[in-house]
Amino acid sequence: MTGSELMGIRIEPADAGVYAAAKRRWDTLAKPIDGLGTLEHLICRIAAIQKKEVPEIDKKAVIVMIADNGVVRENVTQTDDSVTAEVAALLSKKKSSLSNLLRGYPADIIPVDIGIRGEPVPGVLNRRVTSGTGNIAKEDAMTPAQCLQAIETGISLMDSCKEKGYGIIATGEMGIGNTTTSTAVLCALMGTDTADLTGRGAGLSDEQLEHKIRVISSALTFHGYTEALTGTPEEAFGILCELGGLDLAGLTGLFIGGAKNGIPVIVDGLISAAAALLAETIGPGCRDYMLASHAGREKGIMRVLKRLDLIPVIDADLALGEGTGAALLFPLLDMALSLYINGTRFDQTEIAQYERHET
Amino acid sequence: MTGSELMGIRIEPADAGVYAAAKRRWDTLAKPIDGLGTLEHLICRIAAIQKKEVPEIDKKAVIVMIADNGVVRENVTQTDDSVTAEVAALLSKKKSSLSNLLRGYPADIIPVDIGIRGEPVPGVLNRRVTSGTGNIAKEDAMTPAQCLQAIETGISLMDSCKEKGYGIIATGEMGIGNTTTSTAVLCALMGTDTADLTGRGAGLSDEQLEHKIRVISSALTFHGYTEALTGTPEEAFGILCELGGLDLAGLTGLFIGGAKNGIPVIVDGLISAAAALLAETIGPGCRDYMLASHAGREKGIMRVLKRLDLIPVIDADLALGEGTGAALLFPLLDMALSLYINGTRFDQTEIAQYERHET
Repeated sequence: MTGSELMGIRIEPADAGVYAAAKRRWDTLAKPIDGLGTLEHLICRIAAIQKKEVPEIDKKAVIVMIADNGVVRENVTQTDDSVTAEVAALLSKKKSSLSNLLRGYPADIIPVDIGIRGEPVPGVLNRRVTSGTGNIAKEDAMTPAQCLQAIETGISLMDSCKEKGYGIIATGEMGIGNTTTSTAVLCALMGTDTADLTGRGAGLSDEQLEHKIRVISSALTFHGYTEALTGTPEEAFGILCELGGLDLAGLTGLFIGGAKNGIPVIVDGLISAAAALLAETIGPGCRDYMLASHAGREKGIMRVLKRLDLIPVIDADLALGEGTGAALLFPLLDMALSLYINGTRFDQTEIAQYERHET
Repeated sequence: MTGSELMGIRIEPADAGVYAAAKRRWDTLAKPIDGLGTLEHLICRIAAIQKKEVPEIDKKAVIVMIADNGVVRENVTQTDDSVTAEVAALLSKKKSSLSNLLRGYPADIIPVDIGIRGEPVPGVLNRRVTSGTGNIAKEDAMTPAQCLQAIETGISLMDSCKEKGYGIIATGEMGIGNTTTSTAVLCALMGTDTADLTGRGAGLSDEQLEHKIRVISSALTFHGYTEALTGTPEEAFGILCELGGLDLAGLTGLFIGGAKNGIPVIVDGLISAAAALLAETIGPGCRDYMLASHAGREKGIMRVLKRLDLIPVIDADLALGEGTGAALLFPLLDMALSLYINGTRFDQTEIAQYERHET
């Protein structure tokens, strides 16, 4: 895939007819109209994405994009970037937070080295584009060729998920410094004030937060993002190369690949949300294939979700990463789908169907 | 239990020392501080309730209190009250919405007839106090003796859950007309304007909603609740007798019984929230043993949860009933507890423990 092929990508909308059929099916079930609220809506959306009135989400995975970010050299994080490889190793040994959260639950975890520094980590899928990115405060994060390769990696992983029969994918990431890059990307994309969007990442003090804001502001100034953009695919790609990271680029590829393959892809936290907005800007229509999971703690998440018109159903002040927030949506979808598939219909009971009042 | 015994009930606070120990344990895990946000807090609260640093919630149930409400004679609902017994029968046959939502998930469903009209429903635990309540617009819902019996039924069910080893209980209800009674109870308890709190129940039109508001207002006037109360246990009990229902009284008993037995009880929607506030007013301190699940669609739910200082983690516009919203919290707690129990500690890795900044 060349850069111009990527910029020219066309995304087909999800199937509105299947959405409507699924909604009608919900209304035949013996329960109050819209009783399961947003969860009914999400099941209809998954049906529309898969083009199946009864969607299949038994086979699930969390794909965790892992990369190092050169901006850690600006001291924007509480830990050094050796933690990226450490957590990657925990993921490979099924000992990470995500692994322990999902213990006993039937979802696969696919950790992907898309740009970790240092030695390759055994058990982590090696798709390394390069060993860490440049320091966005002083240089580009990556070259356009590297960025394109990382996006393609994400797309081809989704192609492979399609072949293997996955019904739904959650996005996750690990990369010390990536709330800094993600916030910079979002400020550039949305023309938002840095102080307004910058959060504490994995737990900064007030002073450290002030420093992080200064670093992001100087990165935006350095790369010339001082006013709102028009939001073309080329602009988004440029922002990703200059201010982003390989984890962000890989995630962007997952969202584009989900749209290409008709697989719903769950947005997790800030980094994943930034990638979702990049994907929608590069390939308008990708949002049709995205599901929000949680509102998160970082301020940027809800801004992005509102912009993409995606509604999170979990609001638990989450800030863990690895895709844990997205994975928490899995069992809620399982339960909603179980009711959708097995639900008793009004015509199987003595109960008169509830009337829908259009308001 | 006499009325004065109930009014004099003393609730011991949940164990703050165990809460603190659980929080310290979370902080030893290799993840960002407070990474799982409110879910960490909920696990700590369950630990404090059970007085066990590692709480046990494997054995779970949803107790569904089912009763008819005389106020349906005021045409405040879209369906007639035969639906109460119909859904009770579906619950007994494992064909209700709750049953289908939980299919394949390890939680018991215990439907309880605490005051259905008509013939007893086979398979539903018969704890009927009387067959439906009076019409609150024109008479008391029940006598103090009936109300007391229904509350005691809830308490004794929780005693029995303790004996059987249940670690957590979700509350559910079924009773056509019970958003009307619950809203009336909440308006009386909180001194809130009727129009401000009344919702569409299982799906009323604008006109039907206006009518429901008028009926609730006239019930409040009829029983003399025209200004805010001081909130004594006796007042709450009086409101429950005059404006409530047997489902509400049974649920109130479950919350009191959870506090008595050290079992966390999950609040579901509006009816359950009204019962939670009744329980806390009758037995101050009960809120320590309650967990919120979802924000719901009915306006009253969040008002009550804020008053009880309980934080819901699901926000999905739910309005189904039967305890479905409370049950959706189960798998989120399972996953959080799995991380809490199995999580890799910092001292098992090369990663330096994150620092907690008190702000």
